[in-house]
This record gives sequence, C-alpha cells and structure tokens, in this order.
Amino acid sequence: MEFTGTGIGQGVAVGPTVRMPEPLPEPDDVPSTRSAAEEAERASASMSAVARDLQQRGETAGGTAGDVLEAQAMMAEDPSLSELVTQATGSGKTAERAVFEAFASFRDQLAAMGGYLGERAADLDDVSQRVIAHLRGVAAPGVPQPDEPFVLVARDLAPADTALLDLDKVLALVTSDGGPTSHTAILAREKSIVAIVGTADALTIGDGTQVVVDAAAGTVTTDPSAEAIADAEARIAQRREAASAPLTPGALADGTPVPLLANLGSGDAAASAVELGAEGVGLFRTEFLFLDAGSTAPSVEEQTQHYVRVLEAFAGKKVTVRVLDAGADKPLPFLNDAPEENPALGLRGLRALRASENILRDQLTALAAADAQTDADLWVMAPMVSTLEETEYFVTRAHEFGLKTAGIMVEVPSIALLAKPALAASDFASIGTNDLTQYTLAADRLLGTVASFQDPWHPAVLRLISEVGQAGAESGKPVGICGEAAADPLLAVVLVGLGATTLSMSPSALADVRLSLARFDSNAAQRLASIALDAHDAASARSAVTDAAPSLQKE
Amino acid sequence: MEFTGTGIGQGVAVGPTVRMPEPLPEPDDVPSTRSAAEEAERASASMSAVARDLQQRGETAGGTAGDVLEAQAMMAEDPSLSELVTQATGSGKTAERAVFEAFASFRDQLAAMGGYLGERAADLDDVSQRVIAHLRGVAAPGVPQPDEPFVLVARDLAPADTALLDLDKVLALVTSDGGPTSHTAILAREKSIVAIVGTADALTIGDGTQVVVDAAAGTVTTDPSAEAIADAEARIAQRREAASAPLTPGALADGTPVPLLANLGSGDAAASAVELGAEGVGLFRTEFLFLDAGSTAPSVEEQTQHYVRVLEAFAGKKVTVRVLDAGADKPLPFLNDAPEENPALGLRGLRALRASENILRDQLTALAAADAQTDADLWVMAPMVSTLEETEYFVTRAHEFGLKTAGIMVEVPSIALLAKPALAASDFASIGTNDLTQYTLAADRLLGTVASFQDPWHPAVLRLISEVGQAGAESGKPVGICGEAAADPLLAVVLVGLGATTLSMSPSALADVRLSLARFDSNAAQRLASIALDAHDAASARSAVTDAAPSLQKE
Repeated sequence: MEFTGTGIGQGVAVGPTVRMPEPLPEPDDVPSTRSAAEEAERASASMSAVARDLQQRGETAGGTAGDVLEAQAMMAEDPSLSELVTQATGSGKTAERAVFEAFASFRDQLAAMGGYLGERAADLDDVSQRVIAHLRGVAAPGVPQPDEPFVLVARDLAPADTALLDLDKVLALVTSDGGPTSHTAILAREKSIVAIVGTADALTIGDGTQVVVDAAAGTVTTDPSAEAIADAEARIAQRREAASAPLTPGALADGTPVPLLANLGSGDAAASAVELGAEGVGLFRTEFLFLDAGSTAPSVEEQTQHYVRVLEAFAGKKVTVRVLDAGADKPLPFLNDAPEENPALGLRGLRALRASENILRDQLTALAAADAQTDADLWVMAPMVSTLEETEYFVTRAHEFGLKTAGIMVEVPSIALLAKPALAASDFASIGTNDLTQYTLAADRLLGTVASFQDPWHPAVLRLISEVGQAGAESGKPVGICGEAAADPLLAVVLVGLGATTLSMSPSALADVRLSLARFDSNAAQRLASIALDAHDAASARSAVTDAAPSLQKE
Repeated sequence: MEFTGTGIGQGVAVGPTVRMPEPLPEPDDVPSTRSAAEEAERASASMSAVARDLQQRGETAGGTAGDVLEAQAMMAEDPSLSELVTQATGSGKTAERAVFEAFASFRDQLAAMGGYLGERAADLDDVSQRVIAHLRGVAAPGVPQPDEPFVLVARDLAPADTALLDLDKVLALVTSDGGPTSHTAILAREKSIVAIVGTADALTIGDGTQVVVDAAAGTVTTDPSAEAIADAEARIAQRREAASAPLTPGALADGTPVPLLANLGSGDAAASAVELGAEGVGLFRTEFLFLDAGSTAPSVEEQTQHYVRVLEAFAGKKVTVRVLDAGADKPLPFLNDAPEENPALGLRGLRALRASENILRDQLTALAAADAQTDADLWVMAPMVSTLEETEYFVTRAHEFGLKTAGIMVEVPSIALLAKPALAASDFASIGTNDLTQYTLAADRLLGTVASFQDPWHPAVLRLISEVGQAGAESGKPVGICGEAAADPLLAVVLVGLGATTLSMSPSALADVRLSLARFDSNAAQRLASIALDAHDAASARSAVTDAAPSLQKE
C-alpha cells in the first residue's frame, strides 16, 4: 500500500516501522473518593517529580533540546497552573482529572495566541501527559528505543521526544499530523533525517511493517516488492556517493554558473555550511539575534559583532543579509505590540521597520560597520516589500548608510508583477518562494487544513517567478531564490530556466541540487521551465517536468 | 488647510463642523472611601439604569440599529461582567474603576477573538462609558444634536451613536480612526452620507469650522475659499441632477452595453436597488442568511424561500448568487470551528464548503428549487477559488444540481494568473477587487496600519484584472466586477477598458458610475486602462488616468 504526505528533503529509507505509543486516555470526570487535600497533595507531588525529571533530562541533553526540556520543567511547576489544579481538586475532582483540565485550559489559551507561543501548546500537552502517567504509575508515552534501526511512525513529535531520539537508529520519520514547518520537519531538515509529515492514515500502518520511505516522492510504501527495495537501496547508495563527491561550484551541464548559497539563521552554522560546499550566503536571517535579545533590540555593537562573525566565515564570498523580518509568526515586543487579526497580512517585514525606523537605522549602521571590518561581499535586502515606493525607500536608505548592494525580497505578488521597475530601482532581487506561494494562493503556509495549496510548483507561482527572472535578464540584475523551492533538485533546474541566477537553501540540500543542475544545460532548463509554466496545476507541472526530464538530461 | 483620508463614495458637502465629545477620562485607581457593599450597589444600580435606557432606545430605533442597542443592553446586564465588577469593588476599588476594569478586560477578550466579535469591542466600550457617566452623574458622551445641518467630526462612531444620528442634519461624517470597512463607512454607504474615514489629525479641526468634504478626493478642506465653496456647490447640484436623471441601462458613449448590477446582502434591499436602476444582481451574498440562522445551517426550505424572494424582485433579469463565503471575518459555528492564526488565509469560502460538503449540497438544492419557481436568470458562483481543480469541482457540482450558469469569483492571485484555463472550465468569472487587492499586496484589508496598501488602482491588481479580462474576451465568457472598485466612477471606466463586461456595486453608487461610463467610448476606456497599467503605483495610476480623462471624454 502507498501512503502520501509532505516529504522533507530528498532522502530514501528502507526498514521496519516502530509506532510511537498513543497518548494516555483522558481521565474520567468522576468525583474523587479521596479528600480534596489528598488529591491536591498527589497532584503536587507528581508535578514536582515530573519537573525534576524534565530538568534532569534537559541537563543531559544540553543545547537547544536542553533549553526546551528546561522550559517544560518550568511549565510543570508554574504557580498559576498549580493553583488551577488545586481549585479543581478543591471542587472534588481527582488529581488526574484536575491536572488534565488545568493543563488543557492553559494549552487552549496558548494555542489561541498562535505563532511561536501557539506552537508551544504541544510542549504543554506533553508535560500534562507525563504528570498524568506519573499519577497513574504508568510509563509516560515516549520514544521507543529498539536495538535495530527503525522507521518511527507517530502522530507528531514533541520536542521532549525528539531530544531523546537515538538518531543513529532512526532511519526515517513518518507523522500523520504536522506540516512542512512542524517541529518534526524542522528536526528532519536540521539533522538530514528522511521524513514525511502530514501522512494521512499513517497510524494505520502496523508495528514492524517493512516500508520504503521516499521523501522526494512524499510516499510511504508498505510491504514493498523486492524490486522497489533494490531501487530504494540503489538511490540510497547514489545519494551517499553524491554527498561525498568533490565540492565543485554549482553549474549547469554547459558550464553556466549557478552559485549555490546557504540559508542561515546564525553565525554558528556558517562553518558547516562551508563544509557542505556553500559558495556564500543567499539568506542570512537576523530574527534570531533579535528574538534572543528579549524585550529590547540588541545594541549596534552586539549586532556588529554578530554580523562580523558570519562575514568572517565567508571571506571573499557573497553574504546576503535580510534586515529584520519581524511580525507574522515572529512577533517582537519592541516592534509589533498591536494584536492583528491576520498577522501574515499585517505590519510585518519592512512595514514594521518603517514604523520603527530607529531599529532599521541601527541595523544598517551595524551592517555597515561589520562590512568595513571584513572581506566578504555584503549584500542587504528587505523582506515583505510590496510596492515600488517601498523598494526605493529601502535601497536609498541602505545606500545612504554606505551599503553598496541593496535589494528586495520578492514574496508578495504585487512586487513580482512590478518586477521591471522594481529591479530598475534596486541592485538585485531575491525570491522567497514560501511566502510568495502563500500569498499567491492565499493559503496560510503554517495551517494544516490548507497545506495542499502550499506548493511552489503551482504554475501561478512559477509565472510570477518568471516575471522577475525576465526583468532580471533584461536589466542584467541578479535574481536569487531563497525559499524552500530551491532545495527541490528538479524544481531548482526549472527555477534556473525561469531566470534565477543563484539558488540558496538549507546546506543539507546543496549536494542534491548540485548534482541535479549538472545534468541539464541552459536550453534544457528553459525547456523544462516552459513545460512547467504551461501546466494548469502544481501536480501536473511537477509530473510533466519529471516526465520530460530524462530525455533532456545530459549523459 | 487640507486633511486627507479614505473617502466613502463620491459625494461632496459644505458646512460647519461639530465635534463629537471625547470619551470620559479613565477613572483613577485609588482606594474607595465607601464600603465595598456600597460601591457594589452603586455599580449595580448604574448598570441596570444604563441597560434600561439602552433597551428603551432600542425599541424606539427599531430595525438593525434597535438590535444593536438591545444587544448592548444585554451587555450592561451580563452576569459574568457583574461578577467581575463585584470582585473589583470587593477588593476596595471604586465603582467607576471597577466598571472600567471589568469592561476593559471583557473588551480585550472580545477584541482578541477578532472578526465580527472583535468589532463588537467598540460596542462594549460604549456601554462602559455610559455606566461610568451615570455613576458620575454626567451626560454620556454622545451624538450632538444641533439645530442646523453639520459635518460631524469624531474619532469613530459606535452603533449606539449612529442609531441616534438625525440623518437630515448630518451633511457629512469625518472620522480620524476607522477604515473603509468600519461601522462609520458601512453606515455612510448604506445611507449615502458623504464620509471620509481614517483622516489623521481630523480631531484638530476646531468646532464650528467651515469645511468642504470631498469624498471622491478623500479630502477635508478647512476655511475653503469662496471659489472652492462655489465649486463644491456646483458638484453637489450636478450630483443631485444625476441622481434624478432617467434610469437608462449602463453603457459607454458608443453604446457598448455595460450592465450595472447591485451588490445585495438580503432580499429586503432588492426593491430599492431596482428603484436606483440596478439591471440585476452581480453579487448576492448569502452569509447573512446563515449568520442569522445561529448554531445550525438554515434548512433547504428556509433557504429556498429566501432565494425566491430575491429572484422574484428581479424577474427576467440576472441574479448572481455567491454560495456561502464563511470563514475569515465571518466564522460560522457549523463550518469553521478551528481557530486559525490567519483566517483570511485559512479554510474559508469554497475551501470550507468542501470540508462540509453537505452545506454546499443543501445550498445548491435550495438555489435550484428557487430557480425552478421563478423567472430570473440565476447564476451561481463560488468564493475564494484559487486553483483550476477547485473551479472544475464547483462548476461540475452546480451543473449536476441543475444550475445552468456556474462561475467563480476571482479574488486570489493564482486564479487570475490561470484565468485562461479557469474561464475555459467555467461559465463566467466575477472579480472581487477587495480581496484580490488584499492578497496581491499581502495587506489585511481590515487592518488600519496597512490600509494604505488597500487600493484597487494598484497596477499589480489591474494587471491581474486585465489577465482575466483578456481571457474573457478570447473565450467570449462574461467577466464581472463585484468589488468596491466598480463603485469608483473613473476606475469603473478603466475596468471596462481592461475587459470587464458588467459592474456590480452598492446601489447608491449606480448613478455616478452610469454617468461616468456614458462619457467614454470603448477606445477611450482601453486607452485609460493602458495608461493605468503603465503606472508604477496606485497613486500615479489614479492621477495619470484623472489627467488623461478630460481629453478622452465625449461632449
């Protein structure tokens, strides 16, 4: 049988499944036979025990996983949660039920806040499950630890689960819930684990079933034929070989250079990106620096140091820094304080920076200072530009601050449709395919119920990219791609055919894309692009290009 | 001096300003000198008095305004609000402060819900003000009642205010807050009152200042010259004449017919639309029928009766019914129960109907039944279509139910970019310019801080409209416009030049648009369209067309 979902990356895996245990059943809402004081005492003891356990696991795990576990430990000891629990036991509920209700009410409040905080609701659920399990004297549902390599099948993975995963044993992750931006997907991308998320009916796959997980196709095949297994194993070997191939610069078969760049969120990741062959940085996100800073923006000095670190790692190479893209799912207290009904359509990106221009000025000041101290080729760009006026505003400001190469992100349909004057007014454009797809299809890219619309192969999205590509070719200005689309090896060829001059992606995707580009010359890329543009939907664009590719390929 | 804002409609007014009183200052948070019981009693007595007063005003006002006032009366007596007030007085606060805090906490919760409920936050503020005024023994801030006609200047108007406005005395409304979809704007459109909303600094205009309010230009001019006054008065006379001109069908100067249709939300408004010369209905919204039905969808029989009423009012004429457009700012309990981070990009329109297909089937059944009983030319269309697959889905369903003319709304950029195959697969298209602008510019059309992006003159929006117009011309399929853009007399000409074959609008805008179309022939309309398309932003498109229009005009 074949199950389909959203594949993360291009990997393939073969192995037996292991099912993640299901959550504990909801505690019955029956009156307690114990005294209220006894129930309160039981609840409090279990909450403390779980907090201690999480704290300890956090210390063992260390790093980001450790931080998450320690945050969960704090949730287990939150005084207002304790008070809610005591109120519930006071009204005659069992400790199990009281914990269940108190955590559920908190998780609903958190979920209603949406964005980053909303996504923490799953962490709270996990703590609740652990406390209830402790009260019942049963093991908390958690990550299985078999001795042999396995494909983990789960509803979705909580940070506490993934922190404890023995990655050497995990061949692949398959989840029934979650989308391309879920915790599971992020983990899979970071650690280069084969994964398929949002696989409807995945939970019907029996424990110990042999499966082929094909992330490129987004399929899980149960009880595969010997032929299918052999094919998968051949691809696994091929990918292993590609990953260890010499790191040549990105280019088409005819030698047309297509520099392959990295998307980075912090200076720490720079070294490993260089190791994987990144020829520069196509998107350096500066949000984390600001998110970590807390309630005020980081100082010019702090920022400068941070930027210097990244620029030093790429001496002589291009580093494209995106100025602060706050708002939407990344609200910052000092920038966005008004609640918005649709934050993705709100005062975000450059709009928010114009409303607090001092933040933009400080950032440009720091970037110029870092530029002066280092030898990288610094480019700066603004997110969420939707009009020509905004383009002129940003490029002028950046030049005023001494930054010589200033451009715009193209992620809003209006600016793609005005690509010609926009490129005339700026030094380069970089297309953010994730947001461009979200707005073109009017479907929230973080919302599971409309996830099927979030496909950069949609011909409407490709048309907009082609407008920018053409404007780039006519004006001689570079047009990069820095959305997830660039990490899809076949789509990468189409994007070059549409006029992209550089591709930027998660460093783990570089090897696959490098290999794919080397198979096609410029004519073939253009031919594939025009096949994709002629399609009427994303699926047929993808399949038409997939069908046409072998005959257009070199070798 | 000139103040600018968003003009509603095309009207002009001249007269003296009257300022709406400012809200009461926030009660100080100082400990009460009375006993807690006394303060609780004071608060309770004032809340009851205000509830009675609102109830009475509601009965006097009747209609929708009455409903709003009665809803406010219920807020004033809400038991959980009372309890919050009593808690606050119990902790030593004054009744004034307790009422202030309790209502503020409720209003914040309501505002956080967003959408329809969120907009009720203003109603709650108004009740709070009334109770505090009653406690202080001062008059509640409210609508001034001068004897002479006046221009009302306010921050924003609450429903309780507008219900009591003596419309015969109000020459125009000018608000500093609120956007084109605020309560003030809706009232102005419904009652054809000259209005400018979101006029920054409007509150600095002194009481009794002579002003010219020009909704078409979006300007308020204080202390106008004699010439400006004469000019305004000439335009007022001209508009009065146009409104009383014979009701000829919409057409260009060369006789090209451009049927002028009405946007309607209920059958009740049908008669007055016909009186104003509507040649049919271009957009019949069915949400209100469903919103009124409460927690379950209305039955097939109820729906049939409702549709029959509208179709009967337009015997022999076209009536375009849009199937339920739920979600986003119009959530329905039986359709959208999951909270969404960005409802405008969520499971709305046709997406929500597919997820609850029984609702769609019932609606199509009712529409077919109503069609069989009446003589109007019934067209049906689906909202929020973003892919060709959705187009085919809806058109096939509608035809299966015996509805012969089935089409799609074009309000998502992706479907505009696929207009050719989409029109091949459907009987017609109708462009919703409000949402199309929102998505193309990625700016929430209900959010004040990004209101400046919501301009259908933006060349990117016009480019998308032109794609649909061209596809319509090539396929011979009708392309209507049913967004607010059609109500702008000059933009209406541009839209026809871009390929629109019908225009649908609030009935109050029909006269102005009819007059404007009659001034230009097809060539002139196309010429103006191409001037608009060549512009680089909304303001320059508007001004280039405004400048070119006189020389292209007939007479």
